[in-house]
Amino acid sequence: MTIITSKSNSLLKKTKKLLRKKYRKHSYLIEGWHLFEEAQRSHAAILRIFVTEDLASKVKQLPNVFIVKEELLKDLSESKTPQGIIAEIAFPKWEMELALKGRFLVLEDVQDPGNVGTMIRTADAAGFDAVFISEKTADIYNQKTLRSMQGSHFHLPIYRVSVLNTIKDLQDSGVQIIATTLAKNSVNYKTITAPESFALVMGNEGQGISLEMAQAADVLAHIGMPGKAESLNVAVAAGIFLFSFI
Amino acid sequence: MTIITSKSNSLLKKTKKLLRKKYRKHSYLIEGWHLFEEAQRSHAAILRIFVTEDLASKVKQLPNVFIVKEELLKDLSESKTPQGIIAEIAFPKWEMELALKGRFLVLEDVQDPGNVGTMIRTADAAGFDAVFISEKTADIYNQKTLRSMQGSHFHLPIYRVSVLNTIKDLQDSGVQIIATTLAKNSVNYKTITAPESFALVMGNEGQGISLEMAQAADVLAHIGMPGKAESLNVAVAAGIFLFSFI
Repeated sequence: MTIITSKSNSLLKKTKKLLRKKYRKHSYLIEGWHLFEEAQRSHAAILRIFVTEDLASKVKQLPNVFIVKEELLKDLSESKTPQGIIAEIAFPKWEMELALKGRFLVLEDVQDPGNVGTMIRTADAAGFDAVFISEKTADIYNQKTLRSMQGSHFHLPIYRVSVLNTIKDLQDSGVQIIATTLAKNSVNYKTITAPESFALVMGNEGQGISLEMAQAADVLAHIGMPGKAESLNVAVAAGIFLFSFI
Repeated sequence: MTIITSKSNSLLKKTKKLLRKKYRKHSYLIEGWHLFEEAQRSHAAILRIFVTEDLASKVKQLPNVFIVKEELLKDLSESKTPQGIIAEIAFPKWEMELALKGRFLVLEDVQDPGNVGTMIRTADAAGFDAVFISEKTADIYNQKTLRSMQGSHFHLPIYRVSVLNTIKDLQDSGVQIIATTLAKNSVNYKTITAPESFALVMGNEGQGISLEMAQAADVLAHIGMPGKAESLNVAVAAGIFLFSFI
């Protein structure tokens, strides 16, 4: 274990950069014990551990532990209470399986990190096999996304892809594409029985799914809303769809 | 229309205080055109309108319009982009109906304003009749709650009550209380057929429902999760329950 006492320590400065997306090339930061324990349980590659002195005994048998003062730890965090621990985790290496079978969630340009994280967490809870996110979807290693995911990125693979290409590959493998929309030419989800292999597509918060996605999908589905609200939060809608189809 | 040019204008200073809960005794602030239009459509009591000059023509026929510069408008807002309009709205006067029949959502000590707002929006979309929130549940006139509610508080009544007393009144009126929990002595929601009159109870994000609530409820329900996530976001869970029961 190494003790770091200065804010100008070069490792601290380098690590702090990982809070910004452009510096996250190979690794990212997680904070708090819950996520740290999830990382351990899931055998994630933990590169470095920054911990306050009072909690150091909990990780003393692990390699690459750095003891830092509370205020230095805060400097590595976007939240006011990093709960005594921040760890640098290597990006996972998810191999893309060639046989695409199972249940998938596809996010097309979902902007809000909280929505992205919550939907991945929900797909994990529903036992989905993988999540595909479009290039314009919020970064999953953003601190807000990580907070909402609650460690689900340790449980299922998340691929950043060109989603229009991916749904074609999925269709070629016999996976039905169910894209969600508020448009009138869609069917109420309650009338749908999802097949064994399907992918649920959720679109952007304001715009919904793209025209290309709507045209390529096998089924367009909406949630019938008897009340006065014009729409549902996208993560809530995803939850209703996901759990209705399993 | 009155033009306000100084940050030290006493009306502006008084209005700015409404961003803080302790000053919200009779009224609150909404921002953005979407919410403003919802307020108009729902005949909410709009007390004052603060608008930037370029948008003033849109509201010129209304009383109590104040034209302010962009930076003064920002001063009345918690967000960086108040979209040109902020309005002061009187608290609604929802009369408690004596005959409690219908579908209700009950929030027991839900802390996060975003979760509270999202659940009220979902209950509105599902056509619920009212929402009851406990004393410790987040304030509904908080800017974050208002943003997530998307105007649903204009569509259905929200009562801040002692929820344990309220569920007894509901039960006396023949309303079934379905309280949600992760506890083992609960049934999977998919096995439940909700009666015509029922109230769904959602608990605190960390603690769940109280012991008293669990004991008083007619049915305890959970969402079966085949995956690895330990729990769902409370607003997602509420969406799954609400739409499954209608």
